[in-house]
Amino acid sequence: MSKSGSEPAPTKELVTAYLKEVKTKVDACIFDFLPDTHEQQDVHQLYQMMLDYPRREGKGLRPALCLLICEAFGGDAERAVNTAAALELLQNWLLIHDDIEDGSELRRGEPCLHQKHGIPMAINVGDALHCKMWEMLHRNTKILGHNLAFQILSEFIQLSNQVVEGQHIELSWVRNNQWNLNEKDYWTMCIQKTAWYTCITPCRVGAIIGGASTEEADAFIEIGKSLGIAFQIQDDVLNLIGDVGRYGKEIAGDISEGKRTLVLIHLFNSCTPPEAQYVIDIMAQPRADKTEADVLGVLKLMEKYNSIQYAQKCSKTLLKEAAEHFTQKFDHLPNNQAKHLFLSLINFFVEREY
Amino acid sequence: MSKSGSEPAPTKELVTAYLKEVKTKVDACIFDFLPDTHEQQDVHQLYQMMLDYPRREGKGLRPALCLLICEAFGGDAERAVNTAAALELLQNWLLIHDDIEDGSELRRGEPCLHQKHGIPMAINVGDALHCKMWEMLHRNTKILGHNLAFQILSEFIQLSNQVVEGQHIELSWVRNNQWNLNEKDYWTMCIQKTAWYTCITPCRVGAIIGGASTEEADAFIEIGKSLGIAFQIQDDVLNLIGDVGRYGKEIAGDISEGKRTLVLIHLFNSCTPPEAQYVIDIMAQPRADKTEADVLGVLKLMEKYNSIQYAQKCSKTLLKEAAEHFTQKFDHLPNNQAKHLFLSLINFFVEREY
Repeated sequence: MSKSGSEPAPTKELVTAYLKEVKTKVDACIFDFLPDTHEQQDVHQLYQMMLDYPRREGKGLRPALCLLICEAFGGDAERAVNTAAALELLQNWLLIHDDIEDGSELRRGEPCLHQKHGIPMAINVGDALHCKMWEMLHRNTKILGHNLAFQILSEFIQLSNQVVEGQHIELSWVRNNQWNLNEKDYWTMCIQKTAWYTCITPCRVGAIIGGASTEEADAFIEIGKSLGIAFQIQDDVLNLIGDVGRYGKEIAGDISEGKRTLVLIHLFNSCTPPEAQYVIDIMAQPRADKTEADVLGVLKLMEKYNSIQYAQKCSKTLLKEAAEHFTQKFDHLPNNQAKHLFLSLINFFVEREY
Repeated sequence: MSKSGSEPAPTKELVTAYLKEVKTKVDACIFDFLPDTHEQQDVHQLYQMMLDYPRREGKGLRPALCLLICEAFGGDAERAVNTAAALELLQNWLLIHDDIEDGSELRRGEPCLHQKHGIPMAINVGDALHCKMWEMLHRNTKILGHNLAFQILSEFIQLSNQVVEGQHIELSWVRNNQWNLNEKDYWTMCIQKTAWYTCITPCRVGAIIGGASTEEADAFIEIGKSLGIAFQIQDDVLNLIGDVGRYGKEIAGDISEGKRTLVLIHLFNSCTPPEAQYVIDIMAQPRADKTEADVLGVLKLMEKYNSIQYAQKCSKTLLKEAAEHFTQKFDHLPNNQAKHLFLSLINFFVEREY
């Protein structure tokens, strides 16, 4: 589908190759940085647990955004690798804690960390990786100098504040058994919980390292919001209709976990009151009490009202907005190759199947 | 008791007054820094949860160590207040996560955060405070300049690595149902889990801000180890024989939680094999299955073998070592008032009743 666009974008294969190239670089940085052996057996075990999620197959989208935008501004992507690796560490500690908070079962095709080692250890492993993220950012002094390193730290601080707020909003909905949500509620949560760390900050730090002005870096707030929501919607869709082997999480796990998604909000806005009550009764049950038939019942209603298609359409519209905004705003940027790759990469955000 | 020492130390009242003075300053810094209102109700609730532990009555020992040592080196304690406040934020996010990991019930006289709001939210509140700690340290640039601010960040990174390792060691013992521990195992865990963040780093950052040399700051590693273990042992003792109103946790909660303490290790080294088996059978049970009689049974054996007295003796010896080491090493320091107050303060570490 991406081939039919009017943009002179490289093919999907180029994006895949680029993602792979970035992943190799960033992984090397991470595995060189994280400790992996210790003479004391307990501590050795902690180090292995810290390596567990980073070793699982991730897509490396955030580092790719960071490096591409750095290059688009004419910067040396090598100088941004350490920061891109910190984005991956962020993602990993967030996922460990998020998986506990949501009571998830699978992550990247394997049992979640707390399923393997219990909640207490998993909380601590997440904390350990969280600390390592700041350590990695501290290393930027040597790579970028004091001023720039401090600026990047600021960006991560801003991002952290956003992500814990977004997370709290979502957890509140679960705890308060709140279902009367509108699309605006979803956007707000989604921007804070997902868009900041998935799109806004990766682009901003890439831009800053690449030499962008404050005003240029700020443009990525709006671009990243659209892109981040588009990404999250596609994630919600894949959760419902994806292939477990590629997607790596249990299919329809969001229904089991009672997650509020755009698909669900559309369903509530479309179905009859008795149907809505039926859905709420199922969604609000504890995970363990839900049967396969319950989950299928909700899925069927989502199909009946075309809620999944609606979400996919929204995702595509948001992506288009982000791409147009980027193209318009950064017409003057020197590196066309990186710019075009960026546009192809963000297409992948909504066309991906995993 | 402290009055009988040969040191010309100020009285206990002076220590209490000093702790209060520091707490006022550091609390002002924290409550000025942490957000407390937000127009969005969910986020407002998160902010209130983040303020919960900081608002509970803590002793403020770590900030006091930091400011006193800064002054002892002739530094301006006002420049160290922000860093001292970061030590308090550290303590608070650690406690929130630690309380979940240990399945604790009370903290500073009130139900633990996860008892009030559930584990998912409490994990996230801990993360939110953790992020705020780094933000607070980032502010040091304006107070201390880039170089010193980065040095203090380094200290917190080193400390964080220690504390998650120590925590993992302790959690491993629980998860592996491991009871054949010796005193050395306990020291190792205790140094990493407690001594670094309670004593070593507070003294080190105070010294660094006060202008100490690297060699002088390094001396606080050994001093802080002794002091930190002494502190932890007293904590273990108070947990068994303290007054719940003053101590703020459930009495003998460590037995309910199956904690490995020096008292327990001494008991295992002293009692008969059947008694040891009796103790293990009780300690290894899930908390909910333990009766009051079980807990009392273990307590009685600890009394029978003078295990609590043994631990108290150890704590006093360690304190004496720390005080001697400090006096000997820092004979040349200018600020005698701060030095003497430091010696009185560390006496309080083992003489405190809360």
